[in-house]
Amino acid sequence: MRSTERDTVPNSVLGRALTLLTAFRPGDAELSLAELCRRTGIPKATAHRLLGELAVWDVVERTPTGVRLGMRLFELGTLAPLQRGLREAAAPFLADLFEATLETVHLAVPDGIDVVYLQKLDGRRGPPVASRIGGRMPAHCTGVGKALLAFGPPERLAAVLAAGLRRRTPRTVVAPGLFDQELAAVRRNGVAEEHEESAVGIACVAAPVLDADGLAVAAVSITGWANRMDTARLAPAVRTAALGISRVLRSRDRPSGP
Amino acid sequence: MRSTERDTVPNSVLGRALTLLTAFRPGDAELSLAELCRRTGIPKATAHRLLGELAVWDVVERTPTGVRLGMRLFELGTLAPLQRGLREAAAPFLADLFEATLETVHLAVPDGIDVVYLQKLDGRRGPPVASRIGGRMPAHCTGVGKALLAFGPPERLAAVLAAGLRRRTPRTVVAPGLFDQELAAVRRNGVAEEHEESAVGIACVAAPVLDADGLAVAAVSITGWANRMDTARLAPAVRTAALGISRVLRSRDRPSGP
Repeated sequence: MRSTERDTVPNSVLGRALTLLTAFRPGDAELSLAELCRRTGIPKATAHRLLGELAVWDVVERTPTGVRLGMRLFELGTLAPLQRGLREAAAPFLADLFEATLETVHLAVPDGIDVVYLQKLDGRRGPPVASRIGGRMPAHCTGVGKALLAFGPPERLAAVLAAGLRRRTPRTVVAPGLFDQELAAVRRNGVAEEHEESAVGIACVAAPVLDADGLAVAAVSITGWANRMDTARLAPAVRTAALGISRVLRSRDRPSGP
Repeated sequence: MRSTERDTVPNSVLGRALTLLTAFRPGDAELSLAELCRRTGIPKATAHRLLGELAVWDVVERTPTGVRLGMRLFELGTLAPLQRGLREAAAPFLADLFEATLETVHLAVPDGIDVVYLQKLDGRRGPPVASRIGGRMPAHCTGVGKALLAFGPPERLAAVLAAGLRRRTPRTVVAPGLFDQELAAVRRNGVAEEHEESAVGIACVAAPVLDADGLAVAAVSITGWANRMDTARLAPAVRTAALGISRVLRSRDRPSGP
């Protein structure tokens, strides 16, 4: 989840309710009222009242010891149309890629300087990969991120460079000049590779999903053990899947004629 | 999405904001302000102001012609802990089941008289299945639903019977007596079958994921063409996957000792 640190508690009811919801982090199964108030700075009586109203809508669920995010929020989230449209167009291609390789398959979209994973199919051959559906990673150190940057609008890359290429492993590319060369290679090859740049022991090969203007709106990847994965051999499969998804998306966007 | 029809517009700010969000239905890529106001009964000026605030939080996104649900909502939804915990525990077992059968694999949870799909892996051999991640189906006519009812708390079944067994195809079981016999067979066999009860041409075999008390908290299924799928042959595979997920869930819940 993107950080939404604010210096002050929002004044509006809606702002306060959203502050409470976004106080939940991936590791939190549930939070006590006290912890929620501590994290958000919202007074206990206000938090109690807002959570009560959110519970009526099943947006949160009360437990004997606190609150947790609820079913309605999960359902609403799956309706977000960009994410849903992409995931549904991609589903059969991801399944084919998984069947053909039995490695972990990801579908990701750009968001700011990050990538957000929309789908993940867990390969059993490979390493446990820390990604999760709805989770984020910095774009610059992942295969999907590099594919999205190489084929994205210039502003996307500019934002990533402005934020700085933060080191995550000894092999993360952190020099802007080297990173530019890397993206040029991605543009030439149509695929992006990552070799232990986000996590030690893990490699990945990714390809962009392109819209009608040739801009990357998503990326597909296969992830496996760095010392075993033959990225060159798998590249055509990933590229084929990404091209297939791009084709389906373009045919959807095209106005239907006689 | 469950129906949340209300006779009156809620008075509270939060109630109105949630009314706007839940006005979106699965088919809606975006809605105009006029359509949102028509669906919800909320005055245009109020809706405009609330949507403006929701857009600041990326909960909705403005488009040239209206509004759509946004990335933040997708991310928040993936954090709902019951859904996330189940999906993560199930992921490797679903992948194995898909690899072994190449048929469409589902993971679903109960909600009221419905089931909600948490995950779907699309088989290419089988028929296109109308289910979607985050989508709902009535429990009584689906394999996952029957597994959840047979092994669920009595209140779950009572609610389904009270609502009535609505016919969806000529083969939907709609007589309560027959339905009881069907659930008794599910309890004996440990698996639930569905033969064209939710959609013509489609069959499925499902098994319950059980918590430490032996109650079904989720169900796993394989779906395929009704005239080709050998449900008896596939039943042990589905049951094995469901037992594996049950085991992982129980080991998580158990307090860790020395």
